[in-house]
Formats: sequence, structure tokens, C-alpha cells
Amino acid sequence: MSGNNFGKIFNITTFGESHGEALGVVIDGMVPGIDINIHDLHLELKRRAPGQHHVHTSRKEEDVPQILSGVFNNKTLGTPITVIVKNTSQRSEDYDKLKQTHRPGHADQTTIDKYGLRDHRGGGRSSGRETLARVIGGYFAGLIIPEISFYAYISQVAHFKISEHPQNHLVDRGEINIPDNKISKEVIEYLSECKSRGESAGGIVCLSIQGVPKGLGEPVFDKLKADLGKSMLSIPACLGFQLGSSFESCLLPGSDFSKNSMNFSGMEGGISNGEEIFIKLAFKPTSTVGQNAINGRHDPCILPRVIPVVEAMGKIVIADHFLRQNCYASFLPSNTDQSK
Amino acid sequence: MSGNNFGKIFNITTFGESHGEALGVVIDGMVPGIDINIHDLHLELKRRAPGQHHVHTSRKEEDVPQILSGVFNNKTLGTPITVIVKNTSQRSEDYDKLKQTHRPGHADQTTIDKYGLRDHRGGGRSSGRETLARVIGGYFAGLIIPEISFYAYISQVAHFKISEHPQNHLVDRGEINIPDNKISKEVIEYLSECKSRGESAGGIVCLSIQGVPKGLGEPVFDKLKADLGKSMLSIPACLGFQLGSSFESCLLPGSDFSKNSMNFSGMEGGISNGEEIFIKLAFKPTSTVGQNAINGRHDPCILPRVIPVVEAMGKIVIADHFLRQNCYASFLPSNTDQSK
Amino acid sequence: MSGNNFGKIFNITTFGESHGEALGVVIDGMVPGIDINIHDLHLELKRRAPGQHHVHTSRKEEDVPQILSGVFNNKTLGTPITVIVKNTSQRSEDYDKLKQTHRPGHADQTTIDKYGLRDHRGGGRSSGRETLARVIGGYFAGLIIPEISFYAYISQVAHFKISEHPQNHLVDRGEINIPDNKISKEVIEYLSECKSRGESAGGIVCLSIQGVPKGLGEPVFDKLKADLGKSMLSIPACLGFQLGSSFESCLLPGSDFSKNSMNFSGMEGGISNGEEIFIKLAFKPTSTVGQNAINGRHDPCILPRVIPVVEAMGKIVIADHFLRQNCYASFLPSNTDQSK
Amino acid sequence: MSGNNFGKIFNITTFGESHGEALGVVIDGMVPGIDINIHDLHLELKRRAPGQHHVHTSRKEEDVPQILSGVFNNKTLGTPITVIVKNTSQRSEDYDKLKQTHRPGHADQTTIDKYGLRDHRGGGRSSGRETLARVIGGYFAGLIIPEISFYAYISQVAHFKISEHPQNHLVDRGEINIPDNKISKEVIEYLSECKSRGESAGGIVCLSIQGVPKGLGEPVFDKLKADLGKSMLSIPACLGFQLGSSFESCLLPGSDFSKNSMNFSGMEGGISNGEEIFIKLAFKPTSTVGQNAINGRHDPCILPRVIPVVEAMGKIVIADHFLRQNCYASFLPSNTDQSK
Repeated sequence: MSGNNFGKIFNITTFGESHGEALGVVIDGMVPGIDINIHDLHLELKRRAPGQHHVHTSRKEEDVPQILSGVFNNKTLGTPITVIVKNTSQRSEDYDKLKQTHRPGHADQTTIDKYGLRDHRGGGRSSGRETLARVIGGYFAGLIIPEISFYAYISQVAHFKISEHPQNHLVDRGEINIPDNKISKEVIEYLSECKSRGESAGGIVCLSIQGVPKGLGEPVFDKLKADLGKSMLSIPACLGFQLGSSFESCLLPGSDFSKNSMNFSGMEGGISNGEEIFIKLAFKPTSTVGQNAINGRHDPCILPRVIPVVEAMGKIVIADHFLRQNCYASFLPSNTDQSK
Repeated sequence: MSGNNFGKIFNITTFGESHGEALGVVIDGMVPGIDINIHDLHLELKRRAPGQHHVHTSRKEEDVPQILSGVFNNKTLGTPITVIVKNTSQRSEDYDKLKQTHRPGHADQTTIDKYGLRDHRGGGRSSGRETLARVIGGYFAGLIIPEISFYAYISQVAHFKISEHPQNHLVDRGEINIPDNKISKEVIEYLSECKSRGESAGGIVCLSIQGVPKGLGEPVFDKLKADLGKSMLSIPACLGFQLGSSFESCLLPGSDFSKNSMNFSGMEGGISNGEEIFIKLAFKPTSTVGQNAINGRHDPCILPRVIPVVEAMGKIVIADHFLRQNCYASFLPSNTDQSK
Repeated sequence: MSGNNFGKIFNITTFGESHGEALGVVIDGMVPGIDINIHDLHLELKRRAPGQHHVHTSRKEEDVPQILSGVFNNKTLGTPITVIVKNTSQRSEDYDKLKQTHRPGHADQTTIDKYGLRDHRGGGRSSGRETLARVIGGYFAGLIIPEISFYAYISQVAHFKISEHPQNHLVDRGEINIPDNKISKEVIEYLSECKSRGESAGGIVCLSIQGVPKGLGEPVFDKLKADLGKSMLSIPACLGFQLGSSFESCLLPGSDFSKNSMNFSGMEGGISNGEEIFIKLAFKPTSTVGQNAINGRHDPCILPRVIPVVEAMGKIVIADHFLRQNCYASFLPSNTDQSK
Repeated sequence: MSGNNFGKIFNITTFGESHGEALGVVIDGMVPGIDINIHDLHLELKRRAPGQHHVHTSRKEEDVPQILSGVFNNKTLGTPITVIVKNTSQRSEDYDKLKQTHRPGHADQTTIDKYGLRDHRGGGRSSGRETLARVIGGYFAGLIIPEISFYAYISQVAHFKISEHPQNHLVDRGEINIPDNKISKEVIEYLSECKSRGESAGGIVCLSIQGVPKGLGEPVFDKLKADLGKSMLSIPACLGFQLGSSFESCLLPGSDFSKNSMNFSGMEGGISNGEEIFIKLAFKPTSTVGQNAINGRHDPCILPRVIPVVEAMGKIVIADHFLRQNCYASFLPSNTDQSK
């Protein structure tokens, strides 16, 4: 009844039930003396917020981050940074009718199995709302590694699939994080229709990471691919993780596989080789469908809102491994590529 | 330059370079008073050994496990169990020519990038040989949870794909861990041909876990799916992980997705619900191909040998979460399903 | 720039600068379904608060605990419990004059050495104020192990020394936690005088723990004595730790030493044997003396206020080891003494 | 049934029962590319070995270190270093008579209480023999921080006390690690007599650490004093830890205490300030006395042999904190004192 902690040197502990007083995060291991900007942090949270687009749930909670510690005069102190977000829109009465109901695909029953009791007002710790703590953690992680660029987007929702993957991180992702104008419009229309029918949709999210220095990741259990995998699979509704298109490319003859360096996804032996890391993730359709969908508060598809969470988890993993490798930097021969 | 450790309560630390004196594992957190059988352990290692079948590399090292600690009179003491395997077949002269060569897809260059030097005799810690330490760890993990059954198999190599997945764990997996006689034969033929051409092949491995009690896994970062994901993605050559067929099922409408409980793969909210856990893994083709293939010591496909490693990592994750949950068992109401 | 985390299964992460927005703690690994009482928690914090007695600093901040997560309807959920205390009395202007001053014995200079900057408003993380987070953690730890009793007291301040150690935990500890009426009065008088002179005093604190089940503690690094030692030595101003009177008893001939079971302080081989654990701690005099003493906010002796902190750290260590051992309880033979 | 692991970045896992096949250590987090010298390591182990002096037990096991991994061509690889020592002198038949006997002060009974069974041949993991693994770990830790000097010695055995503490680390420590010729001779005579009577003696050990850079240690739980405390109190028979003479100096008026910078023992707020760290440790008399003393294999006083263990634990703590701080070094302003 723990495991609310992630990362070895750069380390986040998240807390808060979806319908409790507040959610938040303690970030331990932050680099001191770094300028922060509360406005930027607020914008990151807005990217994850519901109600940004009419296809989302209409729950209009405004997620206002409040920094409790670790920052003084807009500079990090090196001490633990705590940020909380109050739960203002706790329409828990809506949930009272769910007191005895276990929504399939939610953690309602498994929470009882595990703890012997649960907060019936909502998803508790298993709620997607917990992910705002990760977005906050990701904001601070990103400040440690400003030269590394993270870019996530939706490549497919149901049968709507983009035909071309963006080659750089400047491509506009539109209203719902689909970097293809035509598909974006079709998906918006489809999701509106889903919403009206109490239906939901899932799909594929991609994450590209550029500028990772060589040598990050450890050769055995803490391979970069393993830690990226854990970080992403810990996101609610994420059920699949692959480097590049490995479920297809693994079927190629070895000689063909090796010709395309993209198939290694920026890692060899689990250690970064300096090239682009490219990941594909499967997100299942929202479980709250049909009669279980609560009036007006139903999100037919969480993919658009999950994009900043995916980027945040990527930043947390890379920042942590960056600091882990940094322990040894002063001992390494200077001709070793250890670009900061 | 660490990360050689995996698990929180049941915890393994592996060590050893592929061409060093010995490889091994320290298992901390083992349950005391459990009967062990060195013969069973030896058999597990044989399942992973090369040279079991002519399609494999002909390196015929016999991996003899030697228990250095933690066991007395064939019973576990509860103290750390250390098992080593000596490297008898160190034909490192074969590798001397590779001193300046970096094999693409291997960790040769990234190891230099990371450490500033490497043991040029072989893959070092990134070698597949490291996985025998995991098989040893898995043997002991399995003793803690004898009622839980683990069954891994190959479902596809290149374009050879089994048509039906076994419904129970008694189905014979044949010579190379493919539970389909016809496909098995075709793959053996194909791999023989690959070997002669210096070609290699990858594919898909499945893992079924049956009998997992309800309530294992933690709701946030240490979700069961996240820890299973990390454990599998830490295996060399594993580039993809999905619950069930989530990269396909995630495209279904939510109402259809939810109808098939198999799509949840035995977990809701990251916590086990008592049903079967079913995982698919992508393994890339061996990188050592063509002119890089060393005479006679080239494995055209590692999938047959990776099967016991996949089962071992599964056992380690489940045993660890079993003990983690066990901490709280005496506090839970008896009507909570916490079957031992 | 981390280490704000303590405990393995029952685990606390503390945060907050002495003069920041708030201080607090996240408690991970709490047992679910336990009744809590916010009033009791508040009382514990009052025991640590300044201004309880006229010998203390007159800073009259009221430390009001606010639970943000992990509790619902006054029951623990098993999820992380977060409690914060707002810093209401931030007279930081008082500290502005200290901006360039480094108070000897404080962490002012070492903080700069470590982080390159610091929050000049106060002691930051090194402040004694951080310990209120520990008291909160200790409250919840204590709920897990209600049969185990913790009793700390002052045995000596400067040359004022109690002549007899209480034999049970019911002995009244008086106004300033000295279980000897006469000495208590003398010390109060002495400290009042110290205060008027800008002088300070240190002394010896004792902790008795009764009712610890047999078998807690691990035989090597996580010996119970080692974890108790770390927990106590992590309290600001604590510079010494001994089991019983070991700095004296270690000079006895072995035959004499062994005759008195008190010399083992309830542990053999670092594992609890069911007898009383008795610890002595040295606390140095407050460093802020003479011209550095800020008008009216100077505490001549922190020992009276450190008592609940010492008990809290003891509870955290024992609760953690209790849960660690509990992992294995169901596997042990029933004749093993593993009283819950 | 764990806790065989110590350190966060520089990390050791020890294993092995006193009378099992072998004892050893896995060192994870070692810096790569460092020259090692197996002869130096062997010499360190000899300092800890019994039978070096006639006052010790006559068990003449030769502890020969065997490196299994992590070193190639006498250079560290950055991968886990495993070193084992075979148990050659397993006169376990001597111990058979102890099968049903629980030696007071040993962990015999508490081991049964904890695990439900034990290896009756000896002290198992609680044996002093486990400490050779720490000496090995300390050797490698020392290579990371060659400019930092560690010097431990005996200052008192029973009532024999040295009158002056050495001011530098070059002072000869004589045959039994007492840097005072006269006292050394008296103690040797006293211990010979103890041995003949089946009596034992304890005493005080001091550790001086010079050359520690400023800024090591974390301000809350992982204070340098707390981690040093845990490391020392985890050594068998160590029952007390104090910085300088804090159990005496804490009784001084604050103004006097602060005048002598030695009282801070090189740390302020738990963070190193660049000055000497000076620690005193209480070691109890050996428990095996009188009729329990096995013929000829009884050590009347373990203090002379514990000296290299104390130094080793000091090196492990400081090397770990050095690497922890090193993570952030490249981010700190250059005027921060972060001497390598």
C-alpha cells in the first residue's frame, strides 16, 4: 500500500484522492538555483485539464497549482518542492449513487479487494486526476534538461489514423493533439457523436524525444527502455508500450531490421545512443460508457488530455537518468560523449 | 552505473560480465524455511542454455548453479541466497578481433559512451548471458507462490504464426517453445536456413499467468502492469509490451472493449482482479548477423531461449507484490479476498 | 539534494522550509481502515510547539494540522496521507538582518556550500521546525502498533540530573518532560536565567520502548539498533546515541556485562528479543546564543520540545520493521513468537 | 528478511553465513576506470583477520578475496563488483554441541524468533565474520575518494585508556590498533589474561576523517551524522555512537560548547563543513565467555579487529554521499566549494 513514489535521484511522490481535499506532489532531488515560472506550470496543467474542448467532460475544475515549499524568489532551493491543487469541483453527491456500484474497468472492486475499503466518491488514487501531479513533476524535470525536447501526439483514434508522423517537434498539434488537420476534424466529429451515444474511444499515442545525450540508462534492470516502459504503463488506461513499431518490425529479418536505425529507437543495450527515442503507446477506451456515464461528466476519449502526462513521465525518466549519470561525469575521460 | 537490482521486498541483485569469472545473483527477502531442489534449479537453467537445439548457437557452456549462501540442509534460511555460475567457455580470443569493432544493435558503443571503457571480450552486462541470473531468481520467487502458474511461449517468429493460443498451461510447447506442432517444425526449418545464411529472426512471445490472488499491485506507479512492463522490457531484445492485444483492442469502441474481460488482462486500475494475466512481448531479431556473426557461435533467434527468462521475471514481480500485500494482510477484514 | 524520505514500508517524506508557505509530510504505506482522531494529532503537535512554557521561545505559532489526503470519514484509506501545517508566524523581516550572517552551529554556511544558495529567512530544511512533520508521521505510525508503548523524557540538563529513571511509562513528566519534580523545578529556574543571559543548555534524553514483539530488525545493515540510531541522529541537535549506558557498560568485564540483561537493550544481534529497549541521546545546547539570539524568539534549550519528536521517530522505526516482518508472518511456524 | 544492502548510489549488498560456502559482497555504483590492486585488498582483509595476534582467537582461516565480476585488466568496469571469500575453516562439528544452546548476547534465539529456523553451525548473518564483506566494500569506496583520510583506533579497553588522541593519521597504531605504546602493552597483557580466564573486554573506538569536502550530507534524514551513525551501529557489538565527546560536551553552556569547533565534529546541520569528523564508538565485550567459550577459538576482545571495519563503513558512507553530491556539481556556481 505504497508505490506512490517514482525515480531514484529525481524523485516524485504523489498524493491525493480524486475527490479529497487536494492532490499534489513532492519532488525530491531537484537541482537548486533554477528559475521557475508559475505561469508556465499553470499552462502545463491546463493542457491536461478537462473541458478544454467540447469533446471532453464538462467538469470545469480549474486546476490552480500552489507551491508550498522548495522555491524562494522564483528559484528552486534544492529542497523538496511541494505543489498542491485543491479539488474545487467535488460534486461527490453525483457519486453517491455509485456507492454500491463497481464500474467495470475501473479500480472500484480491486480497490476493495486490496484495501478492504475505499473512498466511494470517485476513483481514489486510480483516478486519471492523479496524473496532474505527474504533469507538475514533469514541469520541474524539464527544467533540468532544457536541451532535450519531448513531443507527444495522437496518431490514431479508433480507425482514424494519421498518414504521416511529424518529422520535427514544431508541427502544430491542433485542438486535440493530432498533428494532422483533416484527421483531427474527423476525430472531433467522431468523439462528439460518441459522447452523445455514451460511447467511448481509445487509440495510439506517440512520444518523440530528441536531444538525449549518449550514455543514459543502466545496462540491466534500469535500462532506459525499461524505465520509460514502467513510467508510461503506470499511466491509467495505458495498456501497451513499444519502441518504434517493434510489434511489426520484430518480424523482419535481422538484416533488414538493422538497416533502419529507427528500429533501435535511440537505445542500444538499453543505453541511449544519442538518436531520437520514439515510443508508441496503446490507450484503451474510457471505461465509463453507456448507463454508467454520469450525465455531462463523461469523457469519451482521454487521449487528447493524456498528451502532457506522457511528456511529463518522459521528462521525469530522462531527468532522473541524466542526474544518475551525472554522478560519474567528473570521473569519465573527456573524450567520452557526456554532453550536458 | 547501478540499477543491477530489482524488486522491493523480494529483491534480486545480479552481477557478472558475459566473459568474466562468473555470473550470479543475490536474492534478498526470500521467505525462510522453504524446501529447495538444486536439480529443479539446474533444469530451469538448462531451459535457457544455448545448444539445446541445433538451431541455437553451438556454445555448449554447461551452466552449473552453485549456491554460496542462504540455504542450509536444502531449506532456505531467510538470509540472502547467492547463486553463481562459472563461465567455463570463455573463448575470449574469438572476441579479440572485435576489440575495435562496435556491433550495431549491441551495447558496444553505448557502453563506451557511458563508462569510458568496456570489457571488449563480450557483451558485458548487456549480454543475454546476464539473464541466467534472472532465471535463478525466478526459481526462488516461484517457491513463494506455488499456486500461481506461469506459462510463456512463442506465438510468432517472422511470418510463422500460431493460429490458436493454448487455453491451459499443460499444452506441450515442443522443442523450441512453440505450442503448435506444425508451426514449430516450420520455424525450426526456417531458423536452420537463417543460421546458414548468417540471418536472424525475431517475433512475439506470450506470457499467461493464472491463479494470481486479487488485490496485488499498487494503484499509482507500482501498478502491476507497470512493474510487469519494466521487468519484461529490461530483458535484452525485448522492445514491446502489451496487455492482451491492446494495440488492436484499444481501437475498439468502449462498449465492445469492455464486453471482453480478456481485454483487462486480469487487472483493473493496475491491481489484480483474480483473472488471467496475459501479456504479449516483441523481441527483435538478433543483431549479430552477416559478417558479424562469429563462426558457429551465432544464435539466429533468441526467442526459444528467452521463454524461461520471461517466466522468471513474471515470477519475481508477482512474488514481490505478493509479499508487499502480505505486510497488510493481518489488518484486512477477513471478507476481503486475500487468498494466500 | 534529497534524503527527505525515511522508512521502507512505512515511509515518510517531509517537505517545507521553516519560513515558507507550509511544512508537511506524505506518509506512504499506511495500513488501511484505521480510525484516526485529528484532535489527538493536534495534541501531539502541541507537545512539540514553542511557547508552551515560558522558558521556551515566545514564537506563538499555532501549528494546525490539515489533512489533505489518505483519510475519509476519519478512517485511513491505505493511500498516502498528506498533512500540512501552514506557517502563520513568518516574521521573516526579523531575519533579513541575517541575510549575510552565518550563525555558527547552524546550517547557514553548509547550506550555501551544498546548494550554492539558501533561503536566508531561516533554517530552511535544517530548522527544528521540520520536526513537526515527524511528529505527524509518528502519530500515524503509532496507530499501527498500539500495544507498543513509547516514553521519552529528559534525564539531564547541564549539571541537573535525575537520580532515578522511571520504571514505567505512567510516571508524570511534569511541565518540561522531566520525571522528577525537584530537578524539573531547578531546570526551569536555570533555563529562565539562561534565557535572560542569552545563554543556552543541552543535555540527555532517554527513550524507553516496551512491548516490542520478538523478531523485529534485520541481522545486517537494518539492525533495529542501526535504524533507531539513524532515526535519532537525524534529529537536529542530536549528537549521540547509545543503547542503555553502553559508553560505560562497554568497559565492564564480559561476564559482568552479560549478567545485566538491560545492557542488551532489548536486542540481540540487532533483532528485538521482546524486552525493553532503552536509548540515551545527547542533545547539544542551542547554537543561537549571545548577540545572535533574536529578541524574544530564542529557545535556551530544545530538549523539552524534542521529546515528542524522539517518540515519533521511535514509532516510525518500529512500525516500519513491524510491517517488514509482517510480510513473512504467514510463512512462519506458529510456535515462532510473532505476536501481533 | 532483507536489509542486506547499504548505500544509495555507492551501494553494497553482502551475503553469506559464517559457516556456509562463502561470504561476499556485490558493490553496485562503482566508478569505472579506476585501478585496483588485489594485493591491497588482501592486506585490508588481513587487518580484520583473526589470529593476527596471540590475543585473538586462533581460528586461522586465511581470507582470500576472489573477484568474480566488475574488474577487467585490473580496472573497474563500472559494473557490479563481486568479491567472495571462501569459508575454509568450517569446523562446524565444534558447533554441533551448540545446536540446542542459545548463547546469551548472540542472535541465536532472536534468529529463531525471526525466521523460525537457523543455521546452528554459527552466528549466521549476525556473525562478526560478515564484516569482511564490509571491508571489501570499503576498499573500493576508498578508491573513489583517495584524498579523504580515514583513521580509526582504540582509545580505551576496560579501564586502560590512552591519555592523548593522535593529532594526525600517521601515528603508529601498534600491534592491536592502540596508538599509545604503553597502553598497548598493558592491554595485550590484560587480554591474554582475560583469554586464559574465559573472560572478555570491550571499549571505545575512535574514527577520525580528514579532508571531507564541504557540502556532503543531506539536511533531513540523510544527514551525514545520521548515515555515519547507522553505518557504525550496524556493526556487530557496536552499541554507542557519538560525535566528538557529545555525551559530555552537551552538558556545557551553549557559549562554551560553540567556542570549540571540534564539538561540531565537521558537520553543521548534518552537512560537512570541511573540518575533521571525529566519532567515538562503544563496543561491548564479546558475549562468548566462561563455559560458552569454545576451546581455543575464543576472542576475548574484538576491538583490535573491528578497526578496519569501522574505517570501511566510514569510507562507504562518505563515498556514497560524495557521489550523491556529484550529481549536482555541474549545476552549482563555481564559487561554491565543491572540491573534488
